Amino acid sequence: MIVTITLNPAVDISYKLDNLSLDTVNRVGDVSKTAGGKGLNVARVLYQLGEDVAASGFLGGSLGGFISAQIAALGIRDFFVPIDGETRNCIAIIHEGKQTEILESGPLISENEATLFLERFTEYVQLVRLVTLSGSLPKGLPADYYVKLVEIANQYDTPILLDSNGASLTTIIESEHKPLLIKPNEEELANLLGQRSVDESQIMDALGSLLFADIPWVVVTLGADGAIVKHDKNLYRARVPKVSASNPVGSGDSVVAGFAAGIARELADEELIKFGLSMGVLNALEEKTGHINVEKIGWAVGQIVVERIEND
Amino acid sequence: MIVTITLNPAVDISYKLDNLSLDTVNRVGDVSKTAGGKGLNVARVLYQLGEDVAASGFLGGSLGGFISAQIAALGIRDFFVPIDGETRNCIAIIHEGKQTEILESGPLISENEATLFLERFTEYVQLVRLVTLSGSLPKGLPADYYVKLVEIANQYDTPILLDSNGASLTTIIESEHKPLLIKPNEEELANLLGQRSVDESQIMDALGSLLFADIPWVVVTLGADGAIVKHDKNLYRARVPKVSASNPVGSGDSVVAGFAAGIARELADEELIKFGLSMGVLNALEEKTGHINVEKIGWAVGQIVVERIEND
Repeated sequence: MIVTITLNPAVDISYKLDNLSLDTVNRVGDVSKTAGGKGLNVARVLYQLGEDVAASGFLGGSLGGFISAQIAALGIRDFFVPIDGETRNCIAIIHEGKQTEILESGPLISENEATLFLERFTEYVQLVRLVTLSGSLPKGLPADYYVKLVEIANQYDTPILLDSNGASLTTIIESEHKPLLIKPNEEELANLLGQRSVDESQIMDALGSLLFADIPWVVVTLGADGAIVKHDKNLYRARVPKVSASNPVGSGDSVVAGFAAGIARELADEELIKFGLSMGVLNALEEKTGHINVEKIGWAVGQIVVERIEND
Repeated sequence: MIVTITLNPAVDISYKLDNLSLDTVNRVGDVSKTAGGKGLNVARVLYQLGEDVAASGFLGGSLGGFISAQIAALGIRDFFVPIDGETRNCIAIIHEGKQTEILESGPLISENEATLFLERFTEYVQLVRLVTLSGSLPKGLPADYYVKLVEIANQYDTPILLDSNGASLTTIIESEHKPLLIKPNEEELANLLGQRSVDESQIMDALGSLLFADIPWVVVTLGADGAIVKHDKNLYRARVPKVSASNPVGSGDSVVAGFAAGIARELADEELIKFGLSMGVLNALEEKTGHINVEKIGWAVGQIVVERIEND
């Protein structure tokens, strides 16, 4: 089993409006509401890939109930820890070719709830094949909460795939407890390096540096330009096919799902990179976030070109 | 007991933002979520007035669960009928002195659900003192659904107070089944008369016309200018004190609650008008919608001036 963790999930609401009129009433008929949060996208793609998958994190209130019901309907196991606070809404208003988002910060996690989660995590991390950690930390948790999770998982040799940024990624880089894989995109890597932007040679230099020496897999995704991937001392350049994307939201999460399933299946390096990145391409082709057409996997894997880069 | 009916309730979400930035992400910490809908405001004020009160209508999904939980916490009885659809969100974004609203249309009511509600309504209308009907009809219900409710209530001599507009008010005016009271505001009365606006003498003429001959009470609210009220063949002009309003939203609903409680208490005409309008004044003084400071009722009633207007 693979467990995907979303500590601050959301009910994602999408409103499609011809025009958003300010300071007045907008009536909207085209509404969609889905269980959201990066780890839930990972879980959906893993489930589509035929993996036995559980979703975990914190859920509370009626919106927590909505997410539980959606997970159950999808066939994903529910490992969420109940909290007193209320799970948040995240709203995207699609209007006049624009996307205006309103993101609630979400509930405050109490010390007891944070401790309860660590206990549950310690139990299931001993039973599962691997764990993914995605997204931001809710209020109330210390910035090194992911470090604690990685430390516990490492005690039981359960691999962790981490997709985070900002302080929760920095604390991992600075800690002695390392995940198996991190997946920064170009911008997140630049932030981590304290730079405004990074070009390909800077990415390659960084991946060869001591900063990432103890993290076996570093997957730097470059959107339509593919990815630069480090595994141990090997460096790979992957190029993905040009596609006409329907909705690229969730493609990074789908890549995490692809790597998680591929690692569970013990694919060799180049196969794994192709399989992982394929899920990002396939997600972008679909309207639904965190959704792939599994019949196109063979095609996508065949379109991705991976070359090994010789290090000096 | 008094039953307040909200056929299309909502979870009202309010977001306070310094600026609403279009086509990007807005993070919001100041979020409030409340059980919304005009009839729920009526219920809250009635409960504050010490009345035994139940709330009814249609509720579904996790947001329906949120409203049920809020009703229970408030001490209001839950007479809602469960539906397969999902209760809606209505969102108010408060930004730069503006209020931008996004109103979902809400669930589609099935024929079976509409029939089930009529059966439940027929049961409790025989047991209760009076019923208020507020707000718009959800999708799936015919425009004359309120007419059916009034017809059933009239069979058991249970008074109905109706606060609606548009087609659902017009069908009542055109029907032979009449409520005890309607409460159009100036604009709603103008719409009903097919005019753009109405002045005081036009309102008085309308209230004396055959259009309202069979509706005992017609309360035309004029906001800060008070109200013009018809009871049978008597006409009253009421003036309310000038107050510095904190939040006038829900004041019309509070007036309905005041009239409902006052009628249940068999107040004489002028007392009833003062009592009813007081609740609108008191609601406007509070931040919370559908909320009054009960300690100020005596003051508010004392500030309202009612004069009887001699008809020609």
